[in-house]
Amino acid sequence: MRKVFQAELQTIGEDLAEMTSLVADAFERAWESFTTADTELAQEVIAADARIDFKQNQLDERAIDVLALQGPVASDLRMIVGSLRMSASLERMGDLARHLAQLTRLRFPDPVVPASVLPTFSEMARLDLTIARDLGELLETRDLAVARRIIESNNQIDELHASIFRIVATPEWNETAPTTADTTLTSRYLERFGDHGVSVARKITYLVTGEWEPGLNLDLPID
Amino acid sequence: MRKVFQAELQTIGEDLAEMTSLVADAFERAWESFTTADTELAQEVIAADARIDFKQNQLDERAIDVLALQGPVASDLRMIVGSLRMSASLERMGDLARHLAQLTRLRFPDPVVPASVLPTFSEMARLDLTIARDLGELLETRDLAVARRIIESNNQIDELHASIFRIVATPEWNETAPTTADTTLTSRYLERFGDHGVSVARKITYLVTGEWEPGLNLDLPID
Repeated sequence: MRKVFQAELQTIGEDLAEMTSLVADAFERAWESFTTADTELAQEVIAADARIDFKQNQLDERAIDVLALQGPVASDLRMIVGSLRMSASLERMGDLARHLAQLTRLRFPDPVVPASVLPTFSEMARLDLTIARDLGELLETRDLAVARRIIESNNQIDELHASIFRIVATPEWNETAPTTADTTLTSRYLERFGDHGVSVARKITYLVTGEWEPGLNLDLPID
Repeated sequence: MRKVFQAELQTIGEDLAEMTSLVADAFERAWESFTTADTELAQEVIAADARIDFKQNQLDERAIDVLALQGPVASDLRMIVGSLRMSASLERMGDLARHLAQLTRLRFPDPVVPASVLPTFSEMARLDLTIARDLGELLETRDLAVARRIIESNNQIDELHASIFRIVATPEWNETAPTTADTTLTSRYLERFGDHGVSVARKITYLVTGEWEPGLNLDLPID
């Protein structure tokens, strides 16, 4: 029985790792489609989101089966419940990548955002992708230094997100209102992606230490 | 044992009902602060969000205790897992109400959005509040007609959300870029609040019927 249980736990861990990898790939491709106005690639990202959703359902059903059949307690139980929450955050990260691809399609052949803010967004996207890849490493190694790196990346994203609103408020910002709206949404999507990454990192940290790390920013949304 | 279990399930149901009521009140007050530029009320909403977060933690801890001590199976297990997911959605709804209050404070003494879009936003907010109150009724009665009403309200919100972007794209839209950005964020917050309401309604429907209602819009985010 215990052997079956350990195998189930391991499979759930693998599901999480696979979801994380799918999300990182989706984000990387969504951002490439966004910066190159590549609607074909954007369409692929949009279509591939169904696979992330499918993976989430699969993981959640597996977790519920384990709860029903094995009746885990203590840290095993928290690991299963934590996995259900992490899969929800990862699914939302996939949605946010899809939203970026959808903006790309919507504005084609124009770029979604003006060239003046692209360096800021590209830096936010680089940090988001780093967070997604770091989550894969954190899941594998449980090394809390990686969790802290994720928090730090997200703090930088938050600063860049705030800087976008300062740029939009300058007299030099001469963009149309729809472009301003798209710029706002893009910044929000990039910011939320990082928040969800932190959310996953916090849950892993909790599973490792049994308590919320004092160094983690508790103001962040839990889900 | 069974009696203790039933009492625990009932308490979790009551926690959910209380969270829903807190969220509806928070949204109602946040929207009032938003439309009247009442920073004192906005500050109260921001401070009260901690109570929703506390309630979520309390509910989640209780649910995990029930899983550990009672080892529920079948529909009882799905109810507990469903509660964990609903509490996450309700917590996010509280965050979105807080975001509206934060915008109110940020722009004081100016209103956050121009008068021209206020009727559209007020209608979205009315529908959001209806959804939150309907969730309370749905939790209590398990009447699936209420779930369908929630979906319908959310469809209307989505249409109004889309109409905001059409308004922003007209030549008559002569607002500053920061106002356009705030208008975009306000629309997004009001839209997401409804999405999370639908998410909760879908979970209750699932618990009642054992399957995803064919009439429910499956394109909506699960969390």
